[in-house]
Amino acid sequence: MIQRIVREFVDGRLRYVVESDGRWQRLEGDVFGEWYAADVVDRPAHVVAPVYPSKIVGIGRNYRDHAIERGKPIPTEPLIFLKPPSAVIGPGEPILIPPGAGRVDHEAELGVIIGKRATRVGQAEALDYVLGYTCANDVTARDLQNSGVQFSHCKGFDSFAPLGPAIAIGLDPSALEVTGLVNGEVRQQSNTRELIFPVAELVSYISHVMTLVPGDVIATGTPAGIGPLAAGDTVTVRVSGIGELSNPVTTTAG
Amino acid sequence: MIQRIVREFVDGRLRYVVESDGRWQRLEGDVFGEWYAADVVDRPAHVVAPVYPSKIVGIGRNYRDHAIERGKPIPTEPLIFLKPPSAVIGPGEPILIPPGAGRVDHEAELGVIIGKRATRVGQAEALDYVLGYTCANDVTARDLQNSGVQFSHCKGFDSFAPLGPAIAIGLDPSALEVTGLVNGEVRQQSNTRELIFPVAELVSYISHVMTLVPGDVIATGTPAGIGPLAAGDTVTVRVSGIGELSNPVTTTAG
Repeated sequence: MIQRIVREFVDGRLRYVVESDGRWQRLEGDVFGEWYAADVVDRPAHVVAPVYPSKIVGIGRNYRDHAIERGKPIPTEPLIFLKPPSAVIGPGEPILIPPGAGRVDHEAELGVIIGKRATRVGQAEALDYVLGYTCANDVTARDLQNSGVQFSHCKGFDSFAPLGPAIAIGLDPSALEVTGLVNGEVRQQSNTRELIFPVAELVSYISHVMTLVPGDVIATGTPAGIGPLAAGDTVTVRVSGIGELSNPVTTTAG
Repeated sequence: MIQRIVREFVDGRLRYVVESDGRWQRLEGDVFGEWYAADVVDRPAHVVAPVYPSKIVGIGRNYRDHAIERGKPIPTEPLIFLKPPSAVIGPGEPILIPPGAGRVDHEAELGVIIGKRATRVGQAEALDYVLGYTCANDVTARDLQNSGVQFSHCKGFDSFAPLGPAIAIGLDPSALEVTGLVNGEVRQQSNTRELIFPVAELVSYISHVMTLVPGDVIATGTPAGIGPLAAGDTVTVRVSGIGELSNPVTTTAG
């Protein structure tokens, strides 16, 4: 059974709620530990990012067609980088185009949410360390990236890491449709079956570099079809089994 | 008056203590907000990293002589990257050389600890957002760096961000001696007067990319004299007015 866990802001507080078969219940306990679905609640109105990660590990060029559109080599090992927690926004929150940043692109991705502390874990057990999956948008200041700055800079601006709307539990990550839309028009369309380095390999590889802790997010890479965003656009990342993450685009005030 | 705030592990708990003129007192309150020096305590025995940052922002090639020794251009803007919180260790904790990582170098640096949330702040007021200063070692897997991976990877391994021993409050960051020693022998020796981008400029610049939050750390860059570490070494970062951060070096088991 697939369950979707959502974090909502209600009555001045944050809480987790869980949806199974269209019914919403309050999550009682620790989302990263022991929990159960308690009393039935309304469908959440004010959904926020599902986690506040200690780190977001991004993966560069993990779909062949995207490496080709970027005119870059296909990686022989996962190309890892970090986005800061300060970049996280939830569904509906605006993506802010910084002044003078030039072209800013959407990148629709499957996000992996870590459930258990993982240090140097093997691929065979790697998925045991995953809590679930979410939609991620690895927003990127493309002109800056092309100028040669570190990815943490061009992908690290405030609001450049939309996450949500849910953590899908019990989902098989090996064949999920990943779609990126701008103003309702499909711009990116692929399937996690096309990932050069699949989820278990990413978790294992990263955990041999840096310990992953509960709530950490892996943005698994984007397929071809990246393109610029403009103020007034709405960008949506859809992953089958999870839902849709939509964000309006605006410019940073002076 | 310069005060040094240290985080210690005592009686199974973490707490802050503050030293003024050789006298240690328990810090009562919020180290990032209102606090005062309360009852006198023993000199701390088990000192840990002074903060657990939400992010560590590193600065590449911020001393001219280091850019030259790396054979790289002098940056015209701060070259920023991220190290993960999972890399943080405190004084005395071992730096672990990962298997197969090749050459791993010390990088002695002044660390800046953010005290207040900073979004797009000007240089004139930037230092108001700083809580204090610490010693930082931006440990780097140099062979990996030269292979072209993102800095977050080659500088992001567990234990690659020693911080401490203290947060020095009331220190002027503009002319501090920064020294790196291996087994007691000076390998790096410079002064923050030589920083291409000084502290206020770094805080302002970074805050225009990503919001800095209390406890975040900026590793301001390393001077010339970087060099490899081997198991059995002890590496020390000394910054005038702060103290000495020493760590033994070992290899990761299995």
